[in-house]
Amino acid sequence: MRKDPTRQVSPQARMLRAFLRHVVKHHINGEQDLLRLRKNGDAVAVFAPDAPRGVTRRRARLGGLACDRHEPRGGAGRGVVLYLHGGGFVMGSSRTHRGISGRLARGVGAAVYTIDYRLAPEHPYPCALEDAATAYRALLATGIDPSRMAVVGDSAGGNLAFALMLKLKGEGVCLPAAVVGLSPFVDMTGSGASMTANATLDPFLDVVRLPDVVGAYAPGLDPLDPLLSPLFGDLQGLPPSFIQCGGDEILLDDATRMHAALLAAGVASKLEVWPRMPHVWQAFARFLPEGREAIDHITAFLRDQIGKEPIPADVAA
Amino acid sequence: MRKDPTRQVSPQARMLRAFLRHVVKHHINGEQDLLRLRKNGDAVAVFAPDAPRGVTRRRARLGGLACDRHEPRGGAGRGVVLYLHGGGFVMGSSRTHRGISGRLARGVGAAVYTIDYRLAPEHPYPCALEDAATAYRALLATGIDPSRMAVVGDSAGGNLAFALMLKLKGEGVCLPAAVVGLSPFVDMTGSGASMTANATLDPFLDVVRLPDVVGAYAPGLDPLDPLLSPLFGDLQGLPPSFIQCGGDEILLDDATRMHAALLAAGVASKLEVWPRMPHVWQAFARFLPEGREAIDHITAFLRDQIGKEPIPADVAA
Repeated sequence: MRKDPTRQVSPQARMLRAFLRHVVKHHINGEQDLLRLRKNGDAVAVFAPDAPRGVTRRRARLGGLACDRHEPRGGAGRGVVLYLHGGGFVMGSSRTHRGISGRLARGVGAAVYTIDYRLAPEHPYPCALEDAATAYRALLATGIDPSRMAVVGDSAGGNLAFALMLKLKGEGVCLPAAVVGLSPFVDMTGSGASMTANATLDPFLDVVRLPDVVGAYAPGLDPLDPLLSPLFGDLQGLPPSFIQCGGDEILLDDATRMHAALLAAGVASKLEVWPRMPHVWQAFARFLPEGREAIDHITAFLRDQIGKEPIPADVAA
Repeated sequence: MRKDPTRQVSPQARMLRAFLRHVVKHHINGEQDLLRLRKNGDAVAVFAPDAPRGVTRRRARLGGLACDRHEPRGGAGRGVVLYLHGGGFVMGSSRTHRGISGRLARGVGAAVYTIDYRLAPEHPYPCALEDAATAYRALLATGIDPSRMAVVGDSAGGNLAFALMLKLKGEGVCLPAAVVGLSPFVDMTGSGASMTANATLDPFLDVVRLPDVVGAYAPGLDPLDPLLSPLFGDLQGLPPSFIQCGGDEILLDDATRMHAALLAAGVASKLEVWPRMPHVWQAFARFLPEGREAIDHITAFLRDQIGKEPIPADVAA
């Protein structure tokens, strides 16, 4: 599905694009020192640091891993979402992704666990993926039915979400009922045509930084490994998938090719390409009408997939 | 005059405040190397890089000094404005201030000259002020009547605008018909109570950077010198003045005290304090309704002061 490309974007979206393009793309994201990039990049992610109304948040642990648990005041009876944040494997945290996590919890009526997986370069592959698997297994161990579970990730977290499906499948672990990728980064070889075609148009991500990110997360490793680039994995048997991506992102072809590969593998995949929306615009929902609208589409999808009816309270996680 | 403090700010203003607070105030403005700060800070200033419709811009020279000349298509017959950009004396340029310069030209029906004065730390005081004086004298030398001239400056440019009045007065040069300061920085001793009272509230300027700016522009000099801190000068005889400032800026007391000092000196001074508007929000007029509205107030003031009627074409600059 594609949105009407003639639709005007909101004034807030025009402003966000300009700020990203002129301040963030080169100046913030241009920081060569990865630890300084993390500090500054996290500031961008957290610039919409909302605590959405009607959601409570508490620190929790999943298999020893620190996380935020977001629970809507109306109850988390519809299921459980594991949220894997973005940030190029080198930055981001449960804190930077509070807004989107809380909005998902409220919209779905589910508990959302946003984990603080280990970051590169201090902790390269497979640390982040192992942490995601640990968290997923810990959720399963609570007794929740996998048909009530979903995994959502944005950008590098979208990579982790799909890689996690492949890893779980390989280990014979029950898959969740749905997986969602927001501007997912699923091809570490950078072979998508949009990497060059959208290099200038993309207001947020600078294609020249991709080797740094890949080098930090997967130093010396083969980027064709499906656990690094799930686009190249055997996608058969994956749960229903929903991918959203901005129309002029450098990652557009990661989204469109992943969607096509999922369909080719017989997976029920849904794709939305939003014209002129920047990378992971949903994270700016506090200010962006299009961010709120996109999240509404995701929560509707997740309600369909993991629970049209609440689970009786005594068995809910 | 104060705006109604109960009025809601626009969604764009809320978004701008958040971006300034979370991305710019500490991360962009926190850069210790002044030349890197200039590069990154200029990116913030230029994030609204509009070329307003109905205005033509060309490179020009005033007394050998490079500048942009903005002329409204409807004619520049009402007069001439010298624009002195902000940027803490260490950054900013005619380029970063294209938007506001063009909007002033269009709104007033005047030619606006935005000069590239020399920047600190390479060129400390009195370079910038001398450049402003050179440009003003060059405009006078074109034969324009001073009653058709105004000087406008924002932030450090507001300092230069008022310091220029004192310098010209001291040298017996005819003063312009009006001076406008947008969030002007007129007290280099930093003695305003808002420096501490608004230190946290101010979403844009970090009070800890002020010594760096003062040290770059006026190293080892006495900040009580009226040509450095025009607040402490003899303001008698200055032209009608208009100051706008955000209500929770650290520079709020620079604005309110300057207004009071101007009134005490018998100058017709007008002050607008705009609640919750960040430092020099007028520069973001491309996106900010409040920026456009504030500029409308300035252009109405300038039309009143420098020319209710166009000058016959053959004598206009």
